[in-house]
Amino acid sequence: MLPDDARVVSADDHIIEHPRVWSDRLPAHLKERGPRVVDEDGVPVWCYDGRRYQPLGLDAVAGDDPTEFKLTSKAFEDMRPGCYDPAARLRDMDEDGIDASLGFPQFPRFAGQTFLEAEDKSLALLCVRAWNDFVLDEWTAPDRSRLIPLSIVPMWDVESAAIEIRRTAAKGARAVTFSENPAALNLPSFWSPAWDPFFSALEETETPLCLHVGSSSRPIVPHPDAPLPVIIGLLGLLSMQAFTDLVMSPIFNRHPKLKVMLSEGGIGWIPYMVERLEQVWEKQRHHSKVNVEKSPAECFRDHIWVCFIRDEAGLEARQRIGVDKILFEADYPHSDTMWPNSRKSLAHQLHDVPADEASLIAGGNAARLLRL
Amino acid sequence: MLPDDARVVSADDHIIEHPRVWSDRLPAHLKERGPRVVDEDGVPVWCYDGRRYQPLGLDAVAGDDPTEFKLTSKAFEDMRPGCYDPAARLRDMDEDGIDASLGFPQFPRFAGQTFLEAEDKSLALLCVRAWNDFVLDEWTAPDRSRLIPLSIVPMWDVESAAIEIRRTAAKGARAVTFSENPAALNLPSFWSPAWDPFFSALEETETPLCLHVGSSSRPIVPHPDAPLPVIIGLLGLLSMQAFTDLVMSPIFNRHPKLKVMLSEGGIGWIPYMVERLEQVWEKQRHHSKVNVEKSPAECFRDHIWVCFIRDEAGLEARQRIGVDKILFEADYPHSDTMWPNSRKSLAHQLHDVPADEASLIAGGNAARLLRL
Repeated sequence: MLPDDARVVSADDHIIEHPRVWSDRLPAHLKERGPRVVDEDGVPVWCYDGRRYQPLGLDAVAGDDPTEFKLTSKAFEDMRPGCYDPAARLRDMDEDGIDASLGFPQFPRFAGQTFLEAEDKSLALLCVRAWNDFVLDEWTAPDRSRLIPLSIVPMWDVESAAIEIRRTAAKGARAVTFSENPAALNLPSFWSPAWDPFFSALEETETPLCLHVGSSSRPIVPHPDAPLPVIIGLLGLLSMQAFTDLVMSPIFNRHPKLKVMLSEGGIGWIPYMVERLEQVWEKQRHHSKVNVEKSPAECFRDHIWVCFIRDEAGLEARQRIGVDKILFEADYPHSDTMWPNSRKSLAHQLHDVPADEASLIAGGNAARLLRL
Repeated sequence: MLPDDARVVSADDHIIEHPRVWSDRLPAHLKERGPRVVDEDGVPVWCYDGRRYQPLGLDAVAGDDPTEFKLTSKAFEDMRPGCYDPAARLRDMDEDGIDASLGFPQFPRFAGQTFLEAEDKSLALLCVRAWNDFVLDEWTAPDRSRLIPLSIVPMWDVESAAIEIRRTAAKGARAVTFSENPAALNLPSFWSPAWDPFFSALEETETPLCLHVGSSSRPIVPHPDAPLPVIIGLLGLLSMQAFTDLVMSPIFNRHPKLKVMLSEGGIGWIPYMVERLEQVWEKQRHHSKVNVEKSPAECFRDHIWVCFIRDEAGLEARQRIGVDKILFEADYPHSDTMWPNSRKSLAHQLHDVPADEASLIAGGNAARLLRL
């Protein structure tokens, strides 16, 4: 039973950047090459470094009737202002029963892949910093206790990434978002020591690393006939992949203080995956090079947190998962959000859960992990 | 609690074909081009249609100590005779506490992909029939009530496949094995009506379709650094993909009597996946073309059975899955087998499960689905 006074923290919401996020911050001579919005027949298309980026309509649907969801892009004036205006976001959070919210990037994509893909990396670095400054200085300004800053990094340069982690942590950032599978972006895999300075900066600043489903830019598409609901239905498998990859790898041996959050991956699969990986580790670690210091279950227990929007199967199995490992997400304004009923949906799911456990899951675990 | 007299059926074991399976059956002028074993320094290498196929050592390890598992191929004389000799298999089943066993192909691969990939399709068709005749006439001959025949089909020709289903069903075959994702093999996807005659033959003969993990020939390999334990740990995700693909597709509308068994995919993820797909179906079926007649949970309930070797998380959640949907697997002689302790392992897992449910899971469900 969720106590009425329990703090609800959403560990995963999405900021739809307003059109001036970069033009307000880039040097005058770069404003035209930085991300800017061009109106094409009422559709807000982002233009950046010679490319066009058309937003997906499903990413700004808080409050919409699902039978009217459209894949086509939505004009800013057709979105709820809470999508892009932090004061309006706070009002929507009030209506939704959400006390605090961690906001992920939209135009940069979940791990900042847009800037990784850009040709001009010195411009891209300025764009990464501009997004972080937007979040730290503007987005969270209306209420720094409720709008929690998360930062992106220049993924292509591990030393610059470590510098950006330290810079933003000093300004108040509470998490860093990164790729669930950097190798899918033609970067070194989690198994590579190349990332050591990056992970060390996270440990040093006590910053958890958020790996959001889709941050590999490699959704699971079983075949060309598979429509979007199949691809959306399989997004959680990307978290399972990242989970498996991480707990088998030597990463947590090299970085014993590293904390990883799997964002929007669900929790109901954790008991299966942990049990299965224990079996595989027990039988198959002898002929292949995997982490042999700590079993997958131990790596999970010490290093990984998991998140859910609606997941009754997972909550029923919460003792197997660990009550202190589970965080709630409202996913505003993406299509899985239950806005304006997120707190109601959460309370319904926690109906049979003791109050102390419900409070941890609703916000206590997030408050601790994000140092709120 | 598993009753002492409960019948244990393994819905998934593996037959290591002996070297003369094809040469005993092909016409004299094709014997040299059909599959035959060549000894290369003690390693039994299959040669077929101009290609070499080197077996994986992990596929014949029943009874081996996991710390001594090797990836390199194993000579026949180093395997337990139960791998390739049905009389010896029955003795190993006795020792393992297994009453009946459904045997999957090894050299042809789980869905017969070896023959699909062959250049000469008329030879390949003869090879498919030869494997089926080997199973029906030779492998199961020592005890037809305990060694249950499963057949493969010529995947490249839907009409021939339907004919082979009818031919083998008439000879006693109780299941057909096929690809979890035919599109990954450059065949039509499950969404295509091209398969209708194939599925109709399965419905007509009341034959369940087994989709074994790996039968797409497309394991999940997150990146080139990922060693085999990561790839093995992710095999269950192939069943999740097939599950998602099937329940979203119109296949069960067109084939209301079709029964699908997901082999070696585990069961602990089912509650998560069903709940998640219900959410996706509820919100996302309006803008994309998916099956709208039956929800994913209904498709599962009416059409899909799931299997486990060791899966305590899944057994704990058996009411969410459906006690009548769960089958046991011994996986002899592959590396997940618990031989000679399969029945003990099963009994341990079923310790807290009521006897009637335990009996269904151990063998009752399999007996019904396979019409034993």
